[in-house]
Amino acid sequence: MRVLAFLDGSLADPEAAHLRVDDLGLLRGDGVFETILVAVKKPREMRPHLDRLARSAAMLDLPAPDLDGFARAAQAVVDAWQGGPEIALKLVYTRGVDGDPEGKPTAFAMGLEVDEKVLRARTEGVSAVTMERGFGPELAERAPWLLLGAKTVSYAMNMAALREAARRGAQDVIFTATDDSVLEGPTSTVVLAKERTLYTPPSTVGILPGTTQYALFRGAEKAGWSVKVEPLSVEDLLRGDGVFLTSSVRKVTRVHTLNGTELPDSTALHEELVAAYESEY
Amino acid sequence: MRVLAFLDGSLADPEAAHLRVDDLGLLRGDGVFETILVAVKKPREMRPHLDRLARSAAMLDLPAPDLDGFARAAQAVVDAWQGGPEIALKLVYTRGVDGDPEGKPTAFAMGLEVDEKVLRARTEGVSAVTMERGFGPELAERAPWLLLGAKTVSYAMNMAALREAARRGAQDVIFTATDDSVLEGPTSTVVLAKERTLYTPPSTVGILPGTTQYALFRGAEKAGWSVKVEPLSVEDLLRGDGVFLTSSVRKVTRVHTLNGTELPDSTALHEELVAAYESEY
Repeated sequence: MRVLAFLDGSLADPEAAHLRVDDLGLLRGDGVFETILVAVKKPREMRPHLDRLARSAAMLDLPAPDLDGFARAAQAVVDAWQGGPEIALKLVYTRGVDGDPEGKPTAFAMGLEVDEKVLRARTEGVSAVTMERGFGPELAERAPWLLLGAKTVSYAMNMAALREAARRGAQDVIFTATDDSVLEGPTSTVVLAKERTLYTPPSTVGILPGTTQYALFRGAEKAGWSVKVEPLSVEDLLRGDGVFLTSSVRKVTRVHTLNGTELPDSTALHEELVAAYESEY
Repeated sequence: MRVLAFLDGSLADPEAAHLRVDDLGLLRGDGVFETILVAVKKPREMRPHLDRLARSAAMLDLPAPDLDGFARAAQAVVDAWQGGPEIALKLVYTRGVDGDPEGKPTAFAMGLEVDEKVLRARTEGVSAVTMERGFGPELAERAPWLLLGAKTVSYAMNMAALREAARRGAQDVIFTATDDSVLEGPTSTVVLAKERTLYTPPSTVGILPGTTQYALFRGAEKAGWSVKVEPLSVEDLLRGDGVFLTSSVRKVTRVHTLNGTELPDSTALHEELVAAYESEY
Protein backbone atom coordinates (compact mmCIF):
# COMPACT_ATOMS: atom_id res chain seq x y z
CA MET A 1 0.00 0.00 0.00
CA ARG A 2 0.98 3.64 -0.41
CA VAL A 3 -0.10 6.67 1.57
CA LEU A 4 0.51 10.24 0.47
CA ALA A 5 0.31 13.36 2.62
CA PHE A 6 1.11 17.01 2.13
CA LEU A 7 2.65 19.40 4.64
CA ASP A 8 -0.69 20.71 5.92
CA GLY A 9 -1.37 17.14 7.06
CA SER A 10 -3.93 16.44 4.33
CA LEU A 11 -4.00 13.02 2.70
CA ALA A 12 -4.29 12.46 -1.04
CA ASP A 13 -4.67 9.55 -3.42
CA PRO A 14 -1.12 8.33 -4.21
CA GLU A 15 -2.34 6.83 -7.48
CA ALA A 16 -3.65 10.15 -8.73
CA ALA A 17 -1.57 12.80 -10.52
CA HIS A 18 -0.34 15.59 -8.26
CA LEU A 19 2.65 17.04 -10.06
CA ARG A 20 3.03 19.25 -13.09
CA VAL A 21 5.44 17.95 -15.71
CA ASP A 22 7.53 21.10 -15.34
CA ASP A 23 8.39 20.46 -11.69
CA LEU A 24 12.13 21.03 -11.39
CA GLY A 25 12.34 17.90 -9.26
CA LEU A 26 11.52 16.03 -12.44
CA LEU A 27 13.08 18.22 -15.16
CA ARG A 28 16.39 18.74 -13.30
CA GLY A 29 16.46 16.27 -10.39
CA ASP A 30 16.53 19.50 -8.43
CA GLY A 31 15.36 18.44 -4.99
CA VAL A 32 16.27 16.50 -1.88
CA PHE A 33 14.75 13.60 0.03
CA GLU A 34 14.91 11.37 3.06
CA THR A 35 13.75 7.81 3.65
CA ILE A 36 12.71 7.04 7.22
CA LEU A 37 11.86 3.67 8.68
CA VAL A 38 8.60 3.55 10.61
CA ALA A 39 8.33 0.41 12.76
CA VAL A 40 5.09 -0.35 14.60
CA LYS A 41 3.82 3.20 13.98
CA LYS A 42 7.01 4.86 15.31
CA PRO A 43 9.34 6.75 12.93
CA ARG A 44 12.99 6.07 13.72
CA GLU A 45 15.55 8.90 13.88
CA MET A 46 12.94 11.46 12.84
CA ARG A 47 14.94 14.46 14.05
CA PRO A 48 18.26 13.44 12.41
CA HIS A 49 16.37 12.79 9.16
CA LEU A 50 14.68 16.20 9.29
CA ASP A 51 18.00 17.86 10.10
CA ARG A 52 19.67 16.10 7.19
CA LEU A 53 16.82 17.15 4.87
CA ALA A 54 17.44 20.76 5.90
CA ARG A 55 21.20 20.32 5.42
CA SER A 56 20.74 18.86 1.91
CA ALA A 57 18.30 21.65 1.04
CA ALA A 58 20.85 24.25 2.15
CA MET A 59 23.52 22.62 -0.04
CA LEU A 60 21.14 23.10 -2.99
CA ASP A 61 20.27 26.70 -1.99
CA LEU A 62 16.64 25.64 -1.59
CA PRO A 63 14.46 27.62 0.80
CA ALA A 64 14.69 26.19 4.33
CA PRO A 65 12.15 23.34 4.46
CA ASP A 66 9.14 23.57 6.76
CA LEU A 67 10.26 20.82 9.14
CA ASP A 68 7.12 21.07 11.27
CA GLY A 69 5.11 20.59 8.10
CA PHE A 70 7.19 17.55 7.14
CA ALA A 71 6.72 16.10 10.63
CA ARG A 72 2.97 16.71 10.29
CA ALA A 73 2.84 15.03 6.88
CA ALA A 74 4.89 12.11 8.21
CA GLN A 75 2.49 11.68 11.13
CA ALA A 76 -0.50 11.80 8.77
CA VAL A 77 1.04 8.97 6.73
CA VAL A 78 1.72 6.91 9.85
CA ASP A 79 -1.80 7.46 11.18
CA ALA A 80 -3.43 6.46 7.90
CA TRP A 81 -1.18 3.45 7.24
CA GLN A 82 -2.96 0.11 7.05
CA GLY A 83 -0.21 -1.92 5.40
CA GLY A 84 2.59 -4.05 6.87
CA PRO A 85 4.31 -3.51 10.25
CA GLU A 86 6.97 -1.27 8.69
CA ILE A 87 6.75 1.77 6.43
CA ALA A 88 9.44 3.20 4.16
CA LEU A 89 8.51 6.83 4.66
CA LYS A 90 9.84 9.20 2.03
CA LEU A 91 10.05 12.95 2.49
CA VAL A 92 10.54 14.78 -0.80
CA TYR A 93 11.29 18.47 -1.32
CA THR A 94 11.91 20.00 -4.75
CA ARG A 95 12.44 23.47 -6.17
CA GLY A 96 8.87 23.40 -7.49
CA VAL A 97 7.57 24.46 -10.87
CA ASP A 98 10.09 25.87 -13.34
CA GLY A 99 9.68 29.63 -13.64
CA ASP A 100 7.23 29.97 -10.74
CA PRO A 101 7.67 33.61 -9.66
CA GLU A 102 6.84 32.66 -6.06
CA GLY A 103 9.41 29.83 -6.11
CA LYS A 104 7.07 27.59 -4.12
CA PRO A 105 8.75 24.24 -3.43
CA THR A 106 7.02 20.91 -3.96
CA ALA A 107 6.86 18.96 -0.70
CA PHE A 108 5.21 15.75 0.39
CA ALA A 109 5.58 12.63 2.51
CA MET A 110 4.81 9.20 1.15
CA GLY A 111 4.67 5.84 2.85
CA LEU A 112 5.58 2.72 0.89
CA GLU A 113 5.93 -0.93 1.80
CA VAL A 114 9.51 -2.00 2.47
CA ASP A 115 10.78 -3.87 -0.56
CA GLU A 116 10.74 -7.71 -0.35
CA LYS A 117 14.38 -7.84 -1.47
CA VAL A 118 15.41 -5.51 1.33
CA LEU A 119 13.61 -7.64 3.92
CA ARG A 120 15.27 -10.80 2.60
CA ALA A 121 18.71 -9.14 2.62
CA ARG A 122 18.28 -8.24 6.31
CA THR A 123 18.29 -11.94 7.19
CA GLU A 124 20.28 -13.49 4.34
CA GLY A 125 22.89 -10.78 3.82
CA VAL A 126 24.12 -9.61 0.43
CA SER A 127 26.92 -10.05 -2.03
CA ALA A 128 28.51 -6.69 -2.85
CA VAL A 129 31.00 -5.41 -5.39
CA THR A 130 33.23 -2.36 -5.20
CA MET A 131 32.90 0.21 -7.97
CA GLU A 132 34.80 3.37 -8.73
CA ARG A 133 33.00 6.60 -7.93
CA GLY A 134 35.70 8.49 -9.81
CA PHE A 135 36.68 11.25 -7.39
CA GLY A 136 39.33 11.78 -4.74
CA PRO A 137 38.51 11.84 -1.02
CA GLU A 138 39.39 15.53 -0.71
CA LEU A 139 37.12 16.76 -3.51
CA ALA A 140 33.90 17.32 -1.55
CA GLU A 141 35.30 20.10 0.60
CA ARG A 142 37.00 21.78 -2.36
CA ALA A 143 34.06 21.62 -4.77
CA PRO A 144 30.76 22.04 -2.91
CA TRP A 145 28.90 22.61 -6.21
CA LEU A 146 29.29 18.89 -6.92
CA LEU A 147 26.81 18.31 -4.05
CA LEU A 148 28.73 15.28 -2.78
CA GLY A 149 27.08 14.28 0.47
CA ALA A 150 23.77 15.98 -0.33
CA LYS A 151 20.82 13.61 -0.53
CA THR A 152 19.39 14.89 -3.80
CA VAL A 153 16.78 13.25 -6.01
CA SER A 154 19.46 13.19 -8.75
CA TYR A 155 20.09 9.50 -8.11
CA ALA A 156 20.26 8.16 -11.68
CA MET A 157 23.90 7.18 -11.19
CA ASN A 158 23.21 5.41 -7.90
CA MET A 159 20.50 3.37 -9.61
CA ALA A 160 22.79 2.61 -12.58
CA ALA A 161 25.47 1.31 -10.20
CA LEU A 162 22.95 -1.09 -8.61
CA ARG A 163 21.96 -2.38 -12.04
CA GLU A 164 25.64 -2.88 -12.90
CA ALA A 165 26.04 -4.84 -9.64
CA ALA A 166 23.13 -7.07 -10.64
CA ARG A 167 24.81 -7.72 -13.99
CA ARG A 168 27.86 -8.85 -12.02
CA GLY A 169 25.69 -11.19 -9.94
CA ALA A 170 25.79 -9.03 -6.81
CA GLN A 171 23.03 -7.28 -4.87
CA ASP A 172 24.81 -4.17 -3.70
CA VAL A 173 27.70 -1.77 -4.30
CA ILE A 174 30.45 -0.19 -2.25
CA PHE A 175 31.81 2.90 -3.99
CA THR A 176 35.53 3.62 -3.80
CA ALA A 177 37.44 6.87 -4.29
CA THR A 178 40.38 7.28 -6.68
CA ASP A 179 42.80 6.38 -3.85
CA ASP A 180 40.86 3.13 -3.43
CA SER A 181 39.43 4.24 -0.09
CA VAL A 182 35.90 3.22 0.83
CA LEU A 183 33.08 5.73 0.31
CA GLU A 184 29.48 4.47 0.71
CA GLY A 185 26.86 2.36 -1.00
CA PRO A 186 24.48 3.93 -3.55
CA THR A 187 21.79 4.00 -0.83
CA SER A 188 23.68 2.92 2.31
CA THR A 189 26.57 3.55 4.69
CA VAL A 190 29.49 1.13 5.01
CA VAL A 191 30.38 -0.18 8.47
CA LEU A 192 33.31 -2.44 9.31
CA ALA A 193 33.55 -4.52 12.50
CA LYS A 194 37.01 -5.49 13.64
CA GLU A 195 38.17 -6.57 17.10
CA ARG A 196 35.13 -5.15 18.92
CA THR A 197 35.43 -1.81 17.13
CA LEU A 198 33.04 -0.42 14.51
CA TYR A 199 34.46 1.77 11.75
CA THR A 200 32.87 3.99 9.11
CA PRO A 201 34.48 6.56 6.77
CA PRO A 202 34.11 10.27 7.64
CA SER A 203 31.46 12.18 5.69
CA THR A 204 34.15 14.71 4.68
CA VAL A 205 35.28 12.27 1.96
CA GLY A 206 32.11 13.23 0.08
CA ILE A 207 29.48 10.88 1.44
CA LEU A 208 26.19 11.18 3.25
CA PRO A 209 26.34 11.08 7.05
CA GLY A 210 24.35 7.91 7.87
CA THR A 211 21.44 8.20 10.29
CA THR A 212 21.20 4.44 10.79
CA GLN A 213 24.97 4.10 11.07
CA TYR A 214 24.88 6.77 13.76
CA ALA A 215 22.09 4.97 15.64
CA LEU A 216 24.01 1.69 15.38
CA PHE A 217 27.18 3.29 16.72
CA ARG A 218 25.21 4.77 19.62
CA GLY A 219 23.65 1.41 20.48
CA ALA A 220 26.91 -0.49 20.01
CA GLU A 221 28.82 1.87 22.29
CA LYS A 222 26.29 1.22 25.03
CA ALA A 223 26.87 -2.50 24.44
CA GLY A 224 30.61 -2.10 24.99
CA TRP A 225 31.89 -1.61 21.45
CA SER A 226 34.39 1.06 20.45
CA VAL A 227 33.45 3.16 17.45
CA LYS A 228 35.74 5.02 15.07
CA VAL A 229 35.11 7.36 12.15
CA GLU A 230 38.15 7.10 9.91
CA PRO A 231 39.19 6.33 6.33
CA LEU A 232 38.91 2.68 5.30
CA SER A 233 40.48 0.75 2.44
CA VAL A 234 38.94 -2.17 0.58
CA GLU A 235 41.79 -4.21 2.08
CA ASP A 236 40.49 -3.24 5.55
CA LEU A 237 37.06 -4.57 4.63
CA LEU A 238 38.52 -7.90 3.48
CA ARG A 239 40.57 -8.30 6.66
CA GLY A 240 37.90 -7.35 9.21
CA ASP A 241 35.48 -9.49 11.18
CA GLY A 242 32.43 -8.29 9.30
CA VAL A 243 31.21 -5.72 6.77
CA PHE A 244 27.73 -4.22 7.00
CA LEU A 245 25.59 -1.86 4.97
CA THR A 246 23.28 0.34 6.98
CA SER A 247 20.30 2.41 5.91
CA SER A 248 16.85 3.16 7.26
CA VAL A 249 15.05 0.39 5.43
CA ARG A 250 17.82 -2.23 5.35
CA LYS A 251 18.73 -1.55 9.01
CA VAL A 252 22.06 -3.40 9.46
CA THR A 253 22.59 -5.74 6.54
CA ARG A 254 25.49 -8.17 6.45
CA VAL A 255 27.80 -8.35 3.42
CA HIS A 256 28.69 -12.02 3.08
CA THR A 257 30.65 -11.74 -0.16
CA LEU A 258 32.80 -8.89 -1.47
CA ASN A 259 34.01 -8.85 -5.08
CA GLY A 260 33.37 -12.58 -5.23
CA THR A 261 35.40 -13.34 -2.09
CA GLU A 262 33.46 -14.90 0.77
CA LEU A 263 34.02 -12.83 3.91
CA PRO A 264 34.47 -14.44 7.36
CA ASP A 265 31.15 -15.65 8.77
CA SER A 266 29.70 -12.65 10.62
CA THR A 267 26.31 -14.16 11.43
CA ALA A 268 26.80 -13.97 15.20
CA LEU A 269 28.27 -10.46 14.98
CA HIS A 270 25.34 -9.44 12.84
CA GLU A 271 22.83 -10.65 15.43
CA GLU A 272 24.69 -8.76 18.12
CA LEU A 273 24.80 -5.53 16.09
CA VAL A 274 21.15 -5.75 15.09
CA ALA A 275 20.30 -6.16 18.78
CA ALA A 276 22.43 -3.12 19.65
CA TYR A 277 20.69 -1.10 16.93
CA GLU A 278 17.21 -2.27 17.95
CA SER A 279 17.93 -1.44 21.59
CA GLU A 280 17.78 2.22 20.56
CA TYR A 281 14.01 1.95 19.93
CA MET B 1 3.42 30.16 -22.85
CA ARG B 2 3.77 26.41 -22.42
CA VAL B 3 2.40 23.57 -24.49
CA LEU B 4 2.34 19.95 -23.37
CA ALA B 5 1.83 16.89 -25.57
CA PHE B 6 1.99 13.16 -25.03
CA LEU B 7 3.35 10.54 -27.42
CA ASP B 8 -0.03 9.77 -28.99
CA GLY B 9 -0.05 13.39 -30.15
CA SER B 10 -2.69 14.52 -27.65
CA LEU B 11 -2.36 17.92 -26.01
CA ALA B 12 -2.87 18.53 -22.30
CA ASP B 13 -3.00 21.48 -19.93
CA PRO B 14 0.63 22.12 -18.83
CA GLU B 15 -0.62 23.82 -15.66
CA ALA B 16 -2.55 20.75 -14.55
CA ALA B 17 -1.08 17.82 -12.62
CA HIS B 18 -0.12 14.86 -14.80
CA LEU B 19 2.43 12.96 -12.76
CA ARG B 20 2.21 10.75 -9.72
CA VAL B 21 4.56 11.68 -6.89
CA ASP B 22 6.15 8.21 -7.09
CA ASP B 23 7.40 8.69 -10.64
CA LEU B 24 11.02 7.53 -10.62
CA GLY B 25 11.90 10.56 -12.71
CA LEU B 26 11.12 12.56 -9.59
CA LEU B 27 12.08 10.17 -6.77
CA ARG B 28 15.41 9.13 -8.33
CA GLY B 29 16.11 11.52 -11.20
CA ASP B 30 15.83 8.32 -13.20
CA GLY B 31 15.15 9.53 -16.70
CA VAL B 32 16.62 11.27 -19.71
CA PHE B 33 15.76 14.36 -21.74
CA GLU B 34 16.54 16.53 -24.73
CA THR B 35 16.01 20.22 -25.38
CA ILE B 36 15.42 21.13 -29.02
CA LEU B 37 15.25 24.58 -30.54
CA VAL B 38 12.23 25.21 -32.72
CA ALA B 39 12.65 28.32 -34.86
CA VAL B 40 9.75 29.58 -36.97
CA LYS B 41 7.88 26.28 -36.48
CA LYS B 42 10.86 24.15 -37.57
CA PRO B 43 12.64 21.92 -35.01
CA ARG B 44 16.41 21.99 -35.47
CA GLU B 45 18.50 18.80 -35.43
CA MET B 46 15.44 16.68 -34.64
CA ARG B 47 17.02 13.40 -35.71
CA PRO B 48 20.30 13.89 -33.77
CA HIS B 49 18.27 14.84 -30.69
CA LEU B 50 16.07 11.75 -30.99
CA ASP B 51 19.14 9.57 -31.52
CA ARG B 52 20.81 11.07 -28.46
CA LEU B 53 17.65 10.50 -26.40
CA ALA B 54 17.78 6.84 -27.40
CA ARG B 55 21.49 6.67 -26.59
CA SER B 56 20.98 8.22 -23.13
CA ALA B 57 18.06 5.86 -22.49
CA ALA B 58 20.25 2.87 -23.39
CA MET B 59 22.94 4.08 -20.96
CA LEU B 60 20.27 3.99 -18.23
CA ASP B 61 18.92 0.58 -19.34
CA LEU B 62 15.57 2.20 -20.04
CA PRO B 63 13.30 0.59 -22.63
CA ALA B 64 14.07 1.93 -26.11
CA PRO B 65 12.03 5.13 -26.45
CA ASP B 66 9.23 5.38 -29.00
CA LEU B 67 10.97 7.89 -31.25
CA ASP B 68 8.03 8.14 -33.65
CA GLY B 69 5.88 8.97 -30.65
CA PHE B 70 8.31 11.64 -29.49
CA ALA B 71 8.39 13.11 -33.01
CA ARG B 72 4.57 13.11 -32.99
CA ALA B 73 4.42 14.81 -29.59
CA ALA B 74 7.01 17.37 -30.72
CA GLN B 75 4.97 18.16 -33.83
CA ALA B 76 1.81 18.52 -31.73
CA VAL B 77 3.59 21.08 -29.55
CA VAL B 78 4.87 22.98 -32.59
CA ASP B 79 1.42 22.98 -34.23
CA ALA B 80 -0.30 24.26 -31.09
CA TRP B 81 2.33 26.88 -30.21
CA GLN B 82 1.10 30.48 -30.15
CA GLY B 83 3.99 32.05 -28.26
CA GLY B 84 7.20 33.69 -29.48
CA PRO B 85 9.10 32.86 -32.70
CA GLU B 86 11.22 30.24 -30.92
CA ILE B 87 10.34 27.27 -28.71
CA ALA B 88 12.56 25.47 -26.24
CA LEU B 89 11.11 22.02 -26.84
CA LYS B 90 11.82 19.48 -24.12
CA LEU B 91 11.46 15.74 -24.59
CA VAL B 92 11.36 13.88 -21.27
CA TYR B 93 11.47 10.12 -20.73
CA THR B 94 11.56 8.54 -17.25
CA ARG B 95 11.39 5.03 -15.82
CA GLY B 96 7.78 5.69 -14.81
CA VAL B 97 6.02 4.87 -11.56
CA ASP B 98 8.07 3.10 -8.90
CA GLY B 99 7.04 -0.55 -8.65
CA ASP B 100 4.84 -0.52 -11.75
CA PRO B 101 4.75 -4.19 -12.83
CA GLU B 102 4.43 -3.13 -16.47
CA GLY B 103 7.39 -0.75 -16.18
CA LYS B 104 5.62 1.81 -18.34
CA PRO B 105 7.87 4.86 -18.87
CA THR B 106 6.65 8.41 -18.47
CA ALA B 107 7.09 10.34 -21.72
CA PHE B 108 6.07 13.75 -22.92
CA ALA B 109 7.11 16.78 -24.98
CA MET B 110 6.80 20.29 -23.67
CA GLY B 111 7.34 23.62 -25.37
CA LEU B 112 8.55 26.58 -23.31
CA GLU B 113 9.55 30.12 -24.15
CA VAL B 114 13.31 30.60 -24.51
CA ASP B 115 14.58 32.25 -21.36
CA GLU B 116 15.18 36.03 -21.53
CA LYS B 117 18.68 35.60 -20.12
CA VAL B 118 19.56 33.11 -22.83
CA LEU B 119 18.36 35.49 -25.54
CA ARG B 120 20.38 38.34 -24.06
CA ALA B 121 23.49 36.15 -23.81
CA ARG B 122 23.25 35.32 -27.51
CA THR B 123 23.92 38.95 -28.36
CA GLU B 124 25.88 40.20 -25.34
CA GLY B 125 27.97 37.11 -24.62
CA VAL B 126 28.71 35.78 -21.14
CA SER B 127 31.33 35.80 -18.45
CA ALA B 128 32.28 32.21 -17.53
CA VAL B 129 34.31 30.57 -14.78
CA THR B 130 36.02 27.21 -14.81
CA MET B 131 35.05 24.74 -12.10
CA GLU B 132 36.35 21.33 -11.20
CA ARG B 133 34.13 18.42 -12.18
CA GLY B 134 36.31 16.13 -10.09
CA PHE B 135 37.05 13.25 -12.43
CA GLY B 136 39.80 12.28 -14.84
CA PRO B 137 39.32 12.33 -18.62
CA GLU B 138 39.63 8.54 -18.88
CA LEU B 139 36.95 7.72 -16.30
CA ALA B 140 33.86 7.66 -18.52
CA GLU B 141 34.98 4.68 -20.57
CA ARG B 142 36.12 2.76 -17.51
CA ALA B 143 33.06 3.40 -15.34
CA PRO B 144 29.89 3.51 -17.48
CA TRP B 145 27.69 3.26 -14.36
CA LEU B 146 28.62 6.89 -13.60
CA LEU B 147 26.52 7.83 -16.66
CA LEU B 148 28.99 10.50 -17.74
CA GLY B 149 27.82 11.74 -21.12
CA ALA B 150 24.22 10.59 -20.62
CA LYS B 151 21.67 13.40 -20.65
CA THR B 152 19.79 12.38 -17.52
CA VAL B 153 17.28 14.43 -15.53
CA SER B 154 19.70 14.07 -12.56
CA TYR B 155 20.95 17.61 -13.12
CA ALA B 156 21.03 18.93 -9.54
CA MET B 157 24.81 19.32 -9.71
CA ASN B 158 24.69 21.14 -13.05
CA MET B 159 22.21 23.61 -11.56
CA ALA B 160 24.34 24.02 -8.40
CA ALA B 161 27.37 24.86 -10.53
CA LEU B 162 25.42 27.60 -12.31
CA ARG B 163 24.35 29.08 -8.96
CA GLU B 164 27.97 28.99 -7.80
CA ALA B 165 28.97 30.83 -10.99
CA ALA B 166 26.37 33.51 -10.23
CA ARG B 167 27.84 33.89 -6.74
CA ARG B 168 31.18 34.52 -8.44
CA GLY B 169 29.59 37.15 -10.65
CA ALA B 170 29.63 34.98 -13.79
CA GLN B 171 26.82 33.69 -15.98
CA ASP B 172 28.17 30.32 -17.03
CA VAL B 173 30.57 27.51 -16.20
CA ILE B 174 33.20 25.49 -18.02
CA PHE B 175 33.89 22.24 -16.18
CA THR B 176 37.44 20.92 -16.05
CA ALA B 177 38.77 17.41 -15.43
CA THR B 178 41.39 16.56 -12.79
CA ASP B 179 44.15 17.05 -15.40
CA ASP B 180 42.78 20.55 -15.97
CA SER B 181 41.51 19.67 -19.42
CA VAL B 182 38.28 21.23 -20.63
CA LEU B 183 35.06 19.21 -20.38
CA GLU B 184 31.77 21.02 -21.07
CA GLY B 185 29.37 23.53 -19.58
CA PRO B 186 26.56 22.40 -17.26
CA THR B 187 24.15 22.73 -20.21
CA SER B 188 26.44 23.47 -23.15
CA THR B 189 29.39 22.37 -25.29
CA VAL B 190 32.68 24.30 -25.33
CA VAL B 191 34.06 25.43 -28.70
CA LEU B 192 37.37 27.19 -29.26
CA ALA B 193 38.20 29.17 -32.40
CA LYS B 194 41.86 29.58 -33.25
CA GLU B 195 43.48 30.42 -36.57
CA ARG B 196 40.42 29.50 -38.66
CA THR B 197 40.03 26.17 -36.88
CA LEU B 198 37.22 25.20 -34.48
CA TYR B 199 38.05 22.84 -31.62
CA THR B 200 35.90 20.91 -29.15
CA PRO B 201 36.87 18.13 -26.70
CA PRO B 202 35.99 14.52 -27.62
CA SER B 203 32.91 13.06 -25.91
CA THR B 204 35.05 10.14 -24.71
CA VAL B 205 36.32 12.40 -21.88
CA GLY B 206 32.89 11.97 -20.28
CA ILE B 207 30.79 14.70 -21.84
CA LEU B 208 27.67 14.92 -23.94
CA PRO B 209 28.16 14.97 -27.71
CA GLY B 210 26.77 18.39 -28.67
CA THR B 211 24.08 18.56 -31.34
CA THR B 212 24.50 22.32 -31.82
CA GLN B 213 28.28 22.05 -31.78
CA TYR B 214 27.99 19.41 -34.49
CA ALA B 215 25.71 21.62 -36.59
CA LEU B 216 28.09 24.54 -36.13
CA PHE B 217 31.08 22.45 -37.22
CA ARG B 218 29.14 21.28 -40.28
CA GLY B 219 28.22 24.84 -41.25
CA ALA B 220 31.69 26.21 -40.49
CA GLU B 221 33.38 23.55 -42.62
CA LYS B 222 31.24 24.58 -45.57
CA ALA B 223 32.35 28.16 -44.91
CA GLY B 224 36.01 27.17 -45.13
CA TRP B 225 36.88 26.51 -41.49
CA SER B 226 38.83 23.50 -40.31
CA VAL B 227 37.30 21.58 -37.39
CA LYS B 228 39.05 19.39 -34.85
CA VAL B 229 37.81 17.21 -32.00
CA GLU B 230 40.65 17.00 -29.52
CA PRO B 231 41.49 17.62 -25.87
CA LEU B 232 41.72 21.26 -24.83
CA SER B 233 43.31 22.92 -21.83
CA VAL B 234 42.10 26.08 -20.08
CA GLU B 235 45.34 27.63 -21.32
CA ASP B 236 44.23 26.84 -24.90
CA LEU B 237 40.99 28.73 -24.27
CA LEU B 238 42.86 31.77 -22.97
CA ARG B 239 45.21 31.82 -25.96
CA GLY B 240 42.65 31.30 -28.72
CA ASP B 241 40.79 33.79 -30.88
CA GLY B 242 37.43 33.10 -29.28
CA VAL B 243 35.61 30.78 -26.88
CA PHE B 244 31.96 29.85 -27.44
CA LEU B 245 29.32 27.86 -25.61
CA THR B 246 26.88 26.06 -27.83
CA SER B 247 23.52 24.50 -27.02
CA SER B 248 20.13 24.29 -28.67
CA VAL B 249 18.64 27.32 -26.98
CA ARG B 250 21.76 29.47 -26.65
CA LYS B 251 22.87 28.64 -30.24
CA VAL B 252 26.47 29.93 -30.39
CA THR B 253 27.12 32.17 -27.40
CA ARG B 254 30.34 34.10 -27.04
CA VAL B 255 32.38 33.92 -23.83
CA HIS B 256 33.81 37.43 -23.39
CA THR B 257 35.42 36.85 -19.99
CA LEU B 258 36.97 33.70 -18.52
CA ASN B 259 37.82 33.50 -14.82
CA GLY B 260 37.79 37.28 -14.68
CA THR B 261 40.17 37.69 -17.63
CA GLU B 262 38.78 39.51 -20.62
CA LEU B 263 39.24 37.37 -23.73
CA PRO B 264 40.24 38.87 -27.12
CA ASP B 265 37.30 40.59 -28.80
CA SER B 266 35.57 37.83 -30.80
CA THR B 267 32.53 39.85 -31.88
CA ALA B 268 33.31 39.57 -35.59
CA LEU B 269 34.19 35.88 -35.29
CA HIS B 270 30.95 35.34 -33.42
CA GLU B 271 28.90 36.93 -36.22
CA GLU B 272 30.65 34.76 -38.73
CA LEU B 273 30.08 31.55 -36.74
CA VAL B 274 26.44 32.35 -36.05
CA ALA B 275 25.99 32.88 -39.80
CA ALA B 276 27.67 29.53 -40.50
CA TYR B 277 25.40 27.83 -37.96
CA GLU B 278 22.25 29.53 -39.26
CA SER B 279 23.15 28.58 -42.84
CA GLU B 280 22.34 24.99 -41.85
CA TYR B 281 18.62 25.86 -41.55
